[in-house]
This record gives sequence, structure tokens and C-alpha cells, in this order.
Amino acid sequence: MSPRRFLAPAGSLVPGELPLPAEEAAHARKVLRLSPGEEVELIDGAGARALGVLTHLNKQGGAVRVESVDQAPAPLPELVLCPGLLKGPAMDLIAVKLTELACDQVRPVLSQRAVPRLKDPGAKQERWSRLARQALKQCGAARAPSFAAPAPLDDLLAAAPDDALKLLLYEQEQGVSLARVLAQAAAPRQVWVLVGPEGGWAPQEAEAAQAAGFVSCGLPHTILRAETACLAVASVIRFGREYEHGATL
Amino acid sequence: MSPRRFLAPAGSLVPGELPLPAEEAAHARKVLRLSPGEEVELIDGAGARALGVLTHLNKQGGAVRVESVDQAPAPLPELVLCPGLLKGPAMDLIAVKLTELACDQVRPVLSQRAVPRLKDPGAKQERWSRLARQALKQCGAARAPSFAAPAPLDDLLAAAPDDALKLLLYEQEQGVSLARVLAQAAAPRQVWVLVGPEGGWAPQEAEAAQAAGFVSCGLPHTILRAETACLAVASVIRFGREYEHGATL
Repeated sequence: MSPRRFLAPAGSLVPGELPLPAEEAAHARKVLRLSPGEEVELIDGAGARALGVLTHLNKQGGAVRVESVDQAPAPLPELVLCPGLLKGPAMDLIAVKLTELACDQVRPVLSQRAVPRLKDPGAKQERWSRLARQALKQCGAARAPSFAAPAPLDDLLAAAPDDALKLLLYEQEQGVSLARVLAQAAAPRQVWVLVGPEGGWAPQEAEAAQAAGFVSCGLPHTILRAETACLAVASVIRFGREYEHGATL
Repeated sequence: MSPRRFLAPAGSLVPGELPLPAEEAAHARKVLRLSPGEEVELIDGAGARALGVLTHLNKQGGAVRVESVDQAPAPLPELVLCPGLLKGPAMDLIAVKLTELACDQVRPVLSQRAVPRLKDPGAKQERWSRLARQALKQCGAARAPSFAAPAPLDDLLAAAPDDALKLLLYEQEQGVSLARVLAQAAAPRQVWVLVGPEGGWAPQEAEAAQAAGFVSCGLPHTILRAETACLAVASVIRFGREYEHGATL
């Protein structure tokens, strides 16, 4: 069985004796019932992974003797997913599943048809980040995505760099599939994808995105719920083709 | 706004006046507060879609005058997903999301490391089918997958036809990615995919599958939770490439 994974602060992993954060130590002791001497894995949520041995675990906390640290290579293309802001449970699902799918950035969009009005966007960002870091413990991804504060579409359009592959997933698109756009694109270093909220993009939003260089494309055969569309497009970009600069597998 | 969708029994959709099933009529009246005269869509979960007008709606039930019926083309390749049996909530999520992703058959596998022991597999099959049909109302797919009773791996291996593209998603696979196998395959009419349970396939299970003609492949960069792997592989097969016999988009 692989060693249990625990979270450590970003950038904290170096060989030697390291404290196990209090919450992780409590989980190790009370839920997993680990004992000193057992092998554990520490991840920092920013790509670093350490293997070590639990040296100390009691009510006051725990410690790990780190024996090796490595840095997981960042997958290419870099994946920036921009979903129209969804309701709480759908955003929570996205935060977890996009972490598993090795998404790099999540940038929610305050689109016209997005339902929620957030009173405290900062609290939501913290919640998504926390869910993402917890998700890392249950999958093999090495990094949590960053979560931006929800922003108006125009800000997103202006933020996407010129050399990124820019995609607009648009349920009204009848002519061009996501698969075709990806097949025709050179190996991109970064992909930005706009995914509509429940109810989709308003026509003027789709026009604005296309004017800003986003290529409109669709998914054939079905119309997905917004959160499923996010997971599907992330899956297709991450696993649908082998880019020369990308996959190590 | 598109008309509201309601479920009708499979094969029941023909032009003319049709009864709205009791549960659907109650939902239309009490939750959606529809009135006679409104346009509605009926789907039968087996590919048929009807447009019509609500003619009648009260406590006793409802009726729809169907004006047109069409049959959604079945997407190709036909997609048969065989997940190692997962816990209840994960199977429920799979039932819903694989419906959205236009999966054709779900055949759970009683693999060695599958945790649940089902007391009443028939009740589970009914539950998954009901969730799938409900999911159809909230997405644009035209068909619910069929759900087989959980079966031993050997039965699954024997059931897969010779001319299907047969894939084993195997987290120990280091050499071959799903993307590469799909890129090298001719346009298949049917794809079967074995996806391991939490804990993965036992080595002898992987060997048996490979001996039965299943091609072992992996997903780079990350290790997904079992239910996420099902959604990712279904997304990649459905939307990752345009097959000549397939996409209409």
C-alpha cells in the first residue's frame, strides 16, 4: 500500500525533521491511527513531494523525518479554466475535480446568466483552495489550482495572453467541435477555456469573447450541465492527446 | 428559453394527445407552475424527443398534444464503461454524469478490490436507471445508459465483442497513454473501458484483461479517484476526437 499523504505548507519541504501541521497530526493519530516509524508522504500543494518516516505523534502534534524531496514536473499545456460562476455545490465539485484533473488556474466569470451573487468572494476563494488541497490527499495530483476571485468577462478576456490557445465552449456553436480545434492547434503552452454557466453565454458575451480571439467550439451529441462541461473539457485537454512538450507517460 | 423537458415511457412518443405521467404532471404543476398552452418537450430516454403543447394539467394528471417527434442519432462510438464497483455516492455520481456524457452501457465489475458488497443488486440497478432518467431532464442527452448487474471480471471479459476497441485503464501502466491508443485506433464502432475501483486492479486482473485483448493504458500527470477516472475517460472518448462515422457537429 502506498504511504499516507499529508499536507504541508507550500515551499516547506526540505530533507530533515519537519513538524506535521496540527490538523494533519490529529487526522493521522485519531482517524488513521498511525504510529511513529510508519512511512508517510508529504505534499506541499505546489508540486513538491517528500517521503519520510513519522518520528513523533501525540496530542501535541507530530513530526516527520524527510528522507527525499522531489518536484513533480508541471504538466503541459497549462490549463486555465474560466467557468461562469455556479452555485455553491457545483463550484465545490469543480474545485475538487479540477484539482484531480491537474488544472492550473480556475478563474470564475461573473457572466450575465450566472445566478449566484457572492457576498464574500474572498471566503469562497479560501473555501475552494481548502477543498482543492484536501482533494490532493485523495488523488495523485501534485498541485492545487489557484482560484481567482470571480471577475467580469471583460477582465478575463483582457487577462488571457496572446500566445495562449483561447477557447470558448459555446452551446450554440453548431459548426466546430472542441476536438477539431485541438487537432488543428499546435502544441500550446497554455490553454484558456471559457465555459458558460447554467443557461449558457449571452450572445453578446460570445461575440465579445470571439472578438478577443477566443475560438468558439462545442461538444457534440449532448448538452452537459455546466459543471460537467468543465470536467469534460479539462479531461479532453489533459488526456485527449499527447503533446510533444507534454506528457511524460 | 427552451421548453421544459419531461420524461415519458420508452417507445411511447407518437404525434397526438399523450398523457403526462403522474409524477411528471405533479412536478409541472407544483414545482414549475406550468399552465395549459405552454410548450413542453417530452423525451423517452431511448433517443426519441417530442415537442408539444400542454393541453391539460390538474391534480388528476396532465396531457400533452405532441406535434412532432424525432429520433436523436445514436453517437458513435458506442461507449461501454465498466467501472470496478464503487461505494453508493460514487456510483450515483457516475450514473448521472455518464448519462450526460452520452455513455451507452454501464457494466459494474465485482473486482477484487471493490469494497461494496451489494445485498440487492437489482435495487441498485433500478436506482441508477432512475437517476439516469432524471439526469436526462437536466441535460441535452437523449438516452439513458443501460445499467447491468455487477458481474465478475471474467464475465465482462467474455462479453466484450471481438470487434470492439477494448481498453484497460490501469494506474500501473507507465508506457502507453489513453491518448496514444485512441490516436492509433481506427474509428471504432464500440469501445469498452475497464476502470479500476479505489485501490485499482489487482495485477492478476490486469493480466487477465490483457490476455482477453484489452489494451492497458494510463492517464499521465495525475492519479484520479475512480469515479473521476470514469468521467475523464468517457469525456476523452466522446469529445476528444472526431471520428468519421461519428460526430455530427
